[in-house]
Amino acid sequence: MPFTAPAIKSFQPPRRTLMGPGPSDVPQRILDAMARPTIGHLDPAFTDMMEEIKQLLRYAFQTGNKLTFPVSGPGSVGMETCFVNLVEPGDKVIVCVNGVFGGRMVENVKRTGGIPVLVEDAWGEPVSLNKVADAFAANPDAKVLAFVHAETSTGARSDAKALAELARKHGALTIMDCVTSLGGIPVLIDAWGIDAAYSGSQKCLSCTPGLAPVTFSERAIAKVQARKTPVQSWFMDLNLVLGYWSGEGRRTYHHTAPINPLYGLHEALVMLAEEGIENAWARHRAMHERLKAGLAKLGLRFVVAEAARLPQLNSLAIPAGIDDAAARGRLLTEFNLEIGAGLGALAGQIWRIGLMGYSAKQANVDYCLKALEAVLAVEAQPVAVI
Amino acid sequence: MPFTAPAIKSFQPPRRTLMGPGPSDVPQRILDAMARPTIGHLDPAFTDMMEEIKQLLRYAFQTGNKLTFPVSGPGSVGMETCFVNLVEPGDKVIVCVNGVFGGRMVENVKRTGGIPVLVEDAWGEPVSLNKVADAFAANPDAKVLAFVHAETSTGARSDAKALAELARKHGALTIMDCVTSLGGIPVLIDAWGIDAAYSGSQKCLSCTPGLAPVTFSERAIAKVQARKTPVQSWFMDLNLVLGYWSGEGRRTYHHTAPINPLYGLHEALVMLAEEGIENAWARHRAMHERLKAGLAKLGLRFVVAEAARLPQLNSLAIPAGIDDAAARGRLLTEFNLEIGAGLGALAGQIWRIGLMGYSAKQANVDYCLKALEAVLAVEAQPVAVI
Repeated sequence: MPFTAPAIKSFQPPRRTLMGPGPSDVPQRILDAMARPTIGHLDPAFTDMMEEIKQLLRYAFQTGNKLTFPVSGPGSVGMETCFVNLVEPGDKVIVCVNGVFGGRMVENVKRTGGIPVLVEDAWGEPVSLNKVADAFAANPDAKVLAFVHAETSTGARSDAKALAELARKHGALTIMDCVTSLGGIPVLIDAWGIDAAYSGSQKCLSCTPGLAPVTFSERAIAKVQARKTPVQSWFMDLNLVLGYWSGEGRRTYHHTAPINPLYGLHEALVMLAEEGIENAWARHRAMHERLKAGLAKLGLRFVVAEAARLPQLNSLAIPAGIDDAAARGRLLTEFNLEIGAGLGALAGQIWRIGLMGYSAKQANVDYCLKALEAVLAVEAQPVAVI
Repeated sequence: MPFTAPAIKSFQPPRRTLMGPGPSDVPQRILDAMARPTIGHLDPAFTDMMEEIKQLLRYAFQTGNKLTFPVSGPGSVGMETCFVNLVEPGDKVIVCVNGVFGGRMVENVKRTGGIPVLVEDAWGEPVSLNKVADAFAANPDAKVLAFVHAETSTGARSDAKALAELARKHGALTIMDCVTSLGGIPVLIDAWGIDAAYSGSQKCLSCTPGLAPVTFSERAIAKVQARKTPVQSWFMDLNLVLGYWSGEGRRTYHHTAPINPLYGLHEALVMLAEEGIENAWARHRAMHERLKAGLAKLGLRFVVAEAARLPQLNSLAIPAGIDDAAARGRLLTEFNLEIGAGLGALAGQIWRIGLMGYSAKQANVDYCLKALEAVLAVEAQPVAVI
């Protein structure tokens, strides 16, 4: 045997306070659920639980969409599932780009053979409704409008309701990224008339990462069923996935579902239903107000204008004279506190403080403010010249 | 709020004995690992653990391949990752089909724009080397040979070493499905010269489902880097995934890794290294012999000829007069024992008894034999005519 067994020990993670852009803190109740005994993916007890997850997700998304389920992969697979099913080669897709995840949507459109029409706004700004209207005027044949409800890379919220109205007015379907919004601020799939949306388990739902809740309207399903070309991904093809996730008739094997992570998502959604989604939204808002008041005392400045600011993701300008990596490193090693760095165009310029799910609580806000105060005081000291 | 909170309780799964085609029983040690506190996917403690997982997977695959890591999705995503990266539109791919998963490979080739050349063998038979040689003779321009090492749908093992030799002789890359073989029987990536292989976490590694270990040779990477067309999947594009999983230089964010499931995989691989992979292979073999002896006493007949029989997946002909669904239903409800049904062409004709990972132990074998004996005795009773 040329390859011998490595002498590696069991992994004992440190205990952090997670206040970055996700994962957020995971309640012990959810971790305990994940550690329950594994059963088979076709076990009647498991498939009953799948039905409960669908019902709970419909509540989270505020939708009656039958096709609502968690994709067995991270949020990025949820995104790709929407694009590979709803975009055919040659389809024009208006994509709103005001951060990293809008840019990722463009990549998805290109790889499906679609034609992306870009509507660009500055990072930190919401999507401009006027620009989208102009894009539809210039591209009346656009089939899909894609936008990010809550840009995780900037902390800006766009007006999903108005964007969906524009799309419907022009006969286009909507694809909405609500990875960071679901559970933290209102996401009203049916009231807004959104056709396809995807989220992630590890943000305001406070589950562990790895699952992507999605929902599709009847209009979206009709488009998938009327495709002239096969969906390019076998794994993400809704026509196949449905055989397993649909509750009608006999379930057919598609892939082996991630059993224990789904136990965790089920528990996270039960907790959301217990709290009540309006209460969860109000809690995120209240914790944001508490954080905002504390940040003002520390002299830290928000990047996003108040009207578009997400309560659950707070982007701050790094103060002049403060070393980004050194300060975050100190927060992590001295306080076991994780906050987020800037991504893409905002790398090195901003910090992102998440107040998502279980992390949106008073103890976390106060701890974060205390840690920031301590680190800023040390890091801002002028270096002694000897 | 038109959609009100459903009154759904926490899920308490039954405790089953899992002896189907996977998931297999998950040791408490692995479940406990999954319930440890979540940390960030860019936390240095986490990225150190990622490096350990890569090292442990190289041991499991018996390879020095640098590009060895777990894809953040089920085995099917591992499969698709291999095909979308290594097959370009117009590439001829010889695909060996002797069960469900060979058929799935064909679907993957088609959806990448490749041209599948089918080598078909009866379900339950190993892949015929002569037919593959003939296929290469008729298609000297074939770029890839794809085959399933251990067909999960039938329990047949094919000669991976000889197949890889044929591919190399004809200048083709190999893609090997080792979902059911990894950890249960020898999988010698480097000794056999396999270019790309994918597996699953929930079979002989005894972890929970949802992760797909993969490994790629330098020849495979060269092919990916020389592609003329972009990889059609954003999520599975190795050029992008590598930025996160490679240990060199600064890690770039690609997607949020499934933190807690990776804790579980790490623990499963630590346990494999502790046992020693040769000992794991020997244990699977010994438990198979024990099961075989017991099945002979019950008069149950294997579907696969002895030379090609997988120790970890035992396909049996359902005895005449026994109702498939009723018997499996009894095993599940009266004995909390899951065995596998037949898939595809073998549905209703066979049972699949898995002896994978932690399920490959004496207590399970004896329990399974006892339960089968009881259920067969009841189910075989002639119905009383009144």
